[in-house]
Amino acid sequence: MTLHIGLLVFPAVQQLDLTGPFEVFASAAGTSVHLVWKDLMPIRSATGLMLTPDTTFADCPQLDVICVPGGGGVNALLRDEAVLDFIRRQARGARFVTSVCTGSLVLGAAGLLKGRRAATHWNALDFLPSFGATPVAERVVRDGAIITAGGVTSGIDFGLSVVAELLGEDEAKTIQLALEYAPAPPFSSGTPEQASAEIVAAARARMATSRSEREAIVAELASEALS
Amino acid sequence: MTLHIGLLVFPAVQQLDLTGPFEVFASAAGTSVHLVWKDLMPIRSATGLMLTPDTTFADCPQLDVICVPGGGGVNALLRDEAVLDFIRRQARGARFVTSVCTGSLVLGAAGLLKGRRAATHWNALDFLPSFGATPVAERVVRDGAIITAGGVTSGIDFGLSVVAELLGEDEAKTIQLALEYAPAPPFSSGTPEQASAEIVAAARARMATSRSEREAIVAELASEALS
Repeated sequence: MTLHIGLLVFPAVQQLDLTGPFEVFASAAGTSVHLVWKDLMPIRSATGLMLTPDTTFADCPQLDVICVPGGGGVNALLRDEAVLDFIRRQARGARFVTSVCTGSLVLGAAGLLKGRRAATHWNALDFLPSFGATPVAERVVRDGAIITAGGVTSGIDFGLSVVAELLGEDEAKTIQLALEYAPAPPFSSGTPEQASAEIVAAARARMATSRSEREAIVAELASEALS
Repeated sequence: MTLHIGLLVFPAVQQLDLTGPFEVFASAAGTSVHLVWKDLMPIRSATGLMLTPDTTFADCPQLDVICVPGGGGVNALLRDEAVLDFIRRQARGARFVTSVCTGSLVLGAAGLLKGRRAATHWNALDFLPSFGATPVAERVVRDGAIITAGGVTSGIDFGLSVVAELLGEDEAKTIQLALEYAPAPPFSSGTPEQASAEIVAAARARMATSRSEREAIVAELASEALS
């Protein structure tokens, strides 16, 4: 039986949030991996790579795994009812409801993280309580049927963890070897704790515009929820 | 001044070989990253993701960095003179001539690895001597202006190393933090040495058809070179 795994694709998605787990999922035996969006027009990702959806919300089969990646484009999704409705509808029948990076904020906006432990990009962890979630600074966090990953590259660790859950550890290990995933970063600068204060400031500065916009949207959503 | 970085895209490319370094390069300050192929039609990657070139061989500016990713589609490139000519032409003016995974076999077929130390996917290291290269089982290998990476995910380590060479270590560290690249693989199975014999056999079996085809092509090329 084919496992249907759907990754949401959207304007200004961070493509590596999506392409990392895609490669892991699509390398697994017996999977069909879909890129899902409102229509099938090519989409520009945050850093310019063009991605082409293959399935619309309307035509998407019930997914075994739905995965929402992150990126600057998440901001627009937080108030997009067509997107949030699609995720809620799929979540009812999916085995795992998942995200990479700031994709967890979209799960939160869909109301799916209430009372849940969840991961996200290190620069977005403080948004999770606004959606009723408990932030966890880990690369892969499972809380029942909800599996969320940390920032960008954690999507590869996440993909292997999800494949192990679905198809067993041997399948995940075989894919890890095929993808030669024995990482050796040339520097030790992958978390705010590892990086120097200057590097943390530089990274925050690059994300500042998107983050300000996100702060305003999350504050609005919180105020609407109270009214 | 803009740094032009071009990644070759081709039918049955292993998309993560390309999308990993793309995200690193495109996140760097002052870069323009191109996906280059013969024409601009969408291309199906090895595991199904569609990629769309944005620059043709004919229109491509002189690149500062040319990068050839790998994948099953490499086999067809080893005898494709239009591809090999393009790479040779770009290599003459580029600052770095690079590859990820089995992309190094294409650099070899273009005659660019003679007398050089080079990396490739663990299941292809034994092909490198046919191109006059010395195989090195490391994730990133620099020999002068030639920088080659190991299998698939090593493209992220490679991307950060190349950015450090081009723009300095602080730029690479800032990108590493933005991409939260502090990898934590859930299993220890990323190299043939780390994986169990059963997992190595399973991974080899999945690659056997493509590898047999590659063996035949490399043997033909070697025999032609002798005649």
